[in-house]
Amino acid sequence: MEPRLSLITLGVTDLERARAFYERLGWRGQEVEETVFFEAGGVVLVLWGRDKLALDSGVADTGRDSFDGVVLAHNVRSAEEVEQVAAAAEAAGATMTRPPGETFYGGYAACFSDPDGHVWEISYNPGFALREDGSIILPDFGTD
Amino acid sequence: MEPRLSLITLGVTDLERARAFYERLGWRGQEVEETVFFEAGGVVLVLWGRDKLALDSGVADTGRDSFDGVVLAHNVRSAEEVEQVAAAAEAAGATMTRPPGETFYGGYAACFSDPDGHVWEISYNPGFALREDGSIILPDFGTD
Repeated sequence: MEPRLSLITLGVTDLERARAFYERLGWRGQEVEETVFFEAGGVVLVLWGRDKLALDSGVADTGRDSFDGVVLAHNVRSAEEVEQVAAAAEAAGATMTRPPGETFYGGYAACFSDPDGHVWEISYNPGFALREDGSIILPDFGTD
Repeated sequence: MEPRLSLITLGVTDLERARAFYERLGWRGQEVEETVFFEAGGVVLVLWGRDKLALDSGVADTGRDSFDGVVLAHNVRSAEEVEQVAAAAEAAGATMTRPPGETFYGGYAACFSDPDGHVWEISYNPGFALREDGSIILPDFGTD
């Protein structure tokens, strides 16, 4: 299995509400058969009914608990940009779960949850450079 | 907020077990301060203690429920490759949640969960081409 993530699908309870949230953030979705696709920089973010997603994946779903166990990160180039994106997310209806502030790794970050409780971290990490196109460069830490 | 996913962090209860699973799949991790980073094709997959991840994100965690509400997809170029990757995942200790088979969208896919219950779909979708480097091309569906 090659090391590659192609799409990430977030299960949602109200597709229109979820899509509207991401569009207020400035993302542009395309809907096909009650599924919304967003280009997210080489990977595709998908919104789909949570019940369909569970059924399609062959897993039981007893409903949302407190935490997905998964956090998505959107990295930016400065602490100021963290503040700006966090403010934009809050204005778009996100619930801030961690206000913008310094991080233990010497960066600056904020966290919010989307209308379905999926958590995003907006992060400025001086150790992780971004390419011109915004994609992240994983450093060679010299460890294994 | 630009449309970009930088990292995805999976909360795990046993870091070594989780890392060993992904390395059996052929991925190569780097560990820094009890965090394991994998290059995953322009996005970074991270394994980190679930308790630390929840705390760091400012969310309560009452423990894992049946389903994250999130599915990660690894797209491949043929139905045969789905079978091969599914077999490799099972040999690496994955729990198959959906055996390889045809999909409603005219493709071929299988799903498995990792040792912490995070779900992956291995998918051949003839509608989604892959670039030479394996990255996915989101088609223009002509919808909005």
